[in-house]
Amino acid sequence: MKEILHGSIAQLAKLIREGKISPVNLIETTFQAIDQHEPRLNAFITLFREESLENARQAETEIRQGKDRGPLHGIPIALKDIIRIAGTHTTCGSKFFAEESPQADATVVTKLKQAGAVVVGKTNLHEFAFGVTTENPHFGATANPWDTSRVPGGSSGGSAAAVVAGCCAGALGSDTGGSIRIPAAVCGHVGLKPTYGRVSVYGVVELAQSLDCVGPMCRHVHDVALMMNALASYDAHDVHSANQPVPDYTESLARPIDGMKGGIPKQHFFENLHPDVEDAVREAIQVLNELGVEIRELDLPSVEAGHEATLTVLMAEAGHFHQQSLEAHRADYGVDVRELLEAGLSLSASDYVKAVRAREMARREFSQAFEQVDFILSPTVPIPAPLRSSHDLSGGSESNRIRPRLTQNTRLFNLLGLPSISVPCGFTQERLPIGLQVSGPWWSEETLLQVAHAYEVATPWHTMHPAL
Amino acid sequence: MKEILHGSIAQLAKLIREGKISPVNLIETTFQAIDQHEPRLNAFITLFREESLENARQAETEIRQGKDRGPLHGIPIALKDIIRIAGTHTTCGSKFFAEESPQADATVVTKLKQAGAVVVGKTNLHEFAFGVTTENPHFGATANPWDTSRVPGGSSGGSAAAVVAGCCAGALGSDTGGSIRIPAAVCGHVGLKPTYGRVSVYGVVELAQSLDCVGPMCRHVHDVALMMNALASYDAHDVHSANQPVPDYTESLARPIDGMKGGIPKQHFFENLHPDVEDAVREAIQVLNELGVEIRELDLPSVEAGHEATLTVLMAEAGHFHQQSLEAHRADYGVDVRELLEAGLSLSASDYVKAVRAREMARREFSQAFEQVDFILSPTVPIPAPLRSSHDLSGGSESNRIRPRLTQNTRLFNLLGLPSISVPCGFTQERLPIGLQVSGPWWSEETLLQVAHAYEVATPWHTMHPAL
Repeated sequence: MKEILHGSIAQLAKLIREGKISPVNLIETTFQAIDQHEPRLNAFITLFREESLENARQAETEIRQGKDRGPLHGIPIALKDIIRIAGTHTTCGSKFFAEESPQADATVVTKLKQAGAVVVGKTNLHEFAFGVTTENPHFGATANPWDTSRVPGGSSGGSAAAVVAGCCAGALGSDTGGSIRIPAAVCGHVGLKPTYGRVSVYGVVELAQSLDCVGPMCRHVHDVALMMNALASYDAHDVHSANQPVPDYTESLARPIDGMKGGIPKQHFFENLHPDVEDAVREAIQVLNELGVEIRELDLPSVEAGHEATLTVLMAEAGHFHQQSLEAHRADYGVDVRELLEAGLSLSASDYVKAVRAREMARREFSQAFEQVDFILSPTVPIPAPLRSSHDLSGGSESNRIRPRLTQNTRLFNLLGLPSISVPCGFTQERLPIGLQVSGPWWSEETLLQVAHAYEVATPWHTMHPAL
Repeated sequence: MKEILHGSIAQLAKLIREGKISPVNLIETTFQAIDQHEPRLNAFITLFREESLENARQAETEIRQGKDRGPLHGIPIALKDIIRIAGTHTTCGSKFFAEESPQADATVVTKLKQAGAVVVGKTNLHEFAFGVTTENPHFGATANPWDTSRVPGGSSGGSAAAVVAGCCAGALGSDTGGSIRIPAAVCGHVGLKPTYGRVSVYGVVELAQSLDCVGPMCRHVHDVALMMNALASYDAHDVHSANQPVPDYTESLARPIDGMKGGIPKQHFFENLHPDVEDAVREAIQVLNELGVEIRELDLPSVEAGHEATLTVLMAEAGHFHQQSLEAHRADYGVDVRELLEAGLSLSASDYVKAVRAREMARREFSQAFEQVDFILSPTVPIPAPLRSSHDLSGGSESNRIRPRLTQNTRLFNLLGLPSISVPCGFTQERLPIGLQVSGPWWSEETLLQVAHAYEVATPWHTMHPAL
């Protein structure tokens, strides 16, 4: 029975409709896994044990009565605890924010409820999502399920750990500088940061408003497509939501990718790689090439300044958002997050304007690049999951050194609002997962899912789960 | 002969093609007017006497030989001295910037040359275009041709004075917070700030990069349309240039405007008006109503924060652009401009982020407003041209009081990148011109020109020139 917890959403949905498992069984089994793994992983901040069973019972009744809400109906989903659910705590990984009990569901919660998904719990995260390790001073650290001495990546590390441990079939994360893709890469699952404005962030606590995205984290590409079908929409509540048509994201998955063009940046993205990461990603590029993808080198001279600019924008916007709260609750912030926020507040308008200009140059350069290629390939993260001991919650030099490396290849896509997916592409010699990042032009999620799916099907041995 | 200097470009073009005047005559007559008025107006910083005659001779030959470049061929045009012409000084109204002799023409200069226009000179401006009075500490003040004790508005005041005095048939200005529309309103001519990205700013010295626009200043709406036909284009040299189709801007002019919807904002735009300005604008709205325009009240609660945000964005971006130069040339800046730049440099990134958020709220609100109306009507400037004595170049309190009032109704359209035109709509009891501002959705220049033209045709008594 437990093996089903590593299956895909489509498989689970099929088993439910064939009567082989019931939503109630599925949720009960999920909570057995949670109870088994939680002591070591600490992936969750809040669990909705009773509500989940109640919702599973309702799903069971609805499906039996022919009120089928589709493939997510009765499926266990976890939410990063930055996403508001009416009447429940949203901690954001913070000591003081935990008091909040919002009146309204985030739009993504409404969407998941409409699709019949069962929210099993809220997952751990770096405090206020402002970090990449998921070492949380108030709710404890989350462990990487492949090696509990290592971080699961952040800030959506709780969601990542829950997904790969089978404690949910899919999860939501948020991604401001890589916080979906980094944990996806170092925990070995699939994570999609959609185009900015594609999925509503209404009801998701802000980190940096011009960068924040919400997206799905799942074990399989097809699951991500199913979740995108439920999540993507225009939302008048979100000032950045785009009124773009929403396709069926599963439709492109089976199409061949031969004839597509994949770009390899000359600059930045392949620098300072762990040798096993470099080998795995070069091999993944070779696999795509054998599937008919034409590989081209891309000259992107603006990326260095763009990556630098992302840090400025992120820190300035996060600082602005927390400005008043930092005055009221200074002692309640973790040291590393407080220092980052204070550094953000010390930036000048001129610094920010400089970053905006770099952003515009990079945006233009990437627009031109996407006239030559359909997508850009890179390692998601240049190194495997760091040891937890390398992270210093007091904001020491080691974590200051690791943080920019973890976001080295992800954050520019936040600056530009471009969609970007991480898909497992192998393991280091120490058996730590490695991620391949596929990034495309605005609104190209269908293409990214198609490429990631083709790659996943061609390399099924990369879709693994840890022995726990 | 001198009366032709107050005619329209279309009339001049017709007279040239009928052989009634030659381009050389026209330029000679123009320089007679310049020589006559310049001692009192001080509209120009640089005059191209010899080159103009040479270019006029060339135009004459070309037209005679059938190489007709269209309605601007042989027409005298003045350029605000912020626009680069290869091999000539561009002072920007600055003491030290005057040393520069650029290698390349601004794109708008290339465009005007291709259209056969004759550039007669570079016009005076507020130092670095950062002010609204055209009181220049290095090149002297420009006078308002209707009352030389008053400012011509700024910062494109030299262009405005030259246009209404007949020292050119049209001019280019730049508009970062109202610097085309304000002088157009208080000098009594037509000025269009195009949609951000519609006319290339390549080769135009920057003031605030996310607000800067270049546009035409002419005596007649039809002239503005003709100049827009020459100027509007996509330009790869300008990172903000938009690849939008360019219509023939004269085509819409004769179309009736009945059935259109004009919006009157409830907030901000009709506050603290000089009574004569209020009367004239209310009457203009009545005229448009009689032409068949349905007038609707618009609720725009975001405009107050938006107007405030524009100042933050303008000052921060100008400060950023001048940061290094201010260190090197501090003593060479005029006091008022230096103080503004220093205030801009003292803003925090958090201040700027706050302004960006207000910008987004206002952008959304205006997008929704333009689903209800085709354009928004307001006074361009709430007061008539202030006395020159009211402006204090030392940055005193009086000028600090007047500056925000002059830009009260114009600057939000820079923040939002919306096109906006000022058209004469009467005079105060002291016989000072008043402007009606018509602002529309992005890329609606055709509509704005159509409405302004219909209004101009219905009220020919407002199209006047001062007795000089």
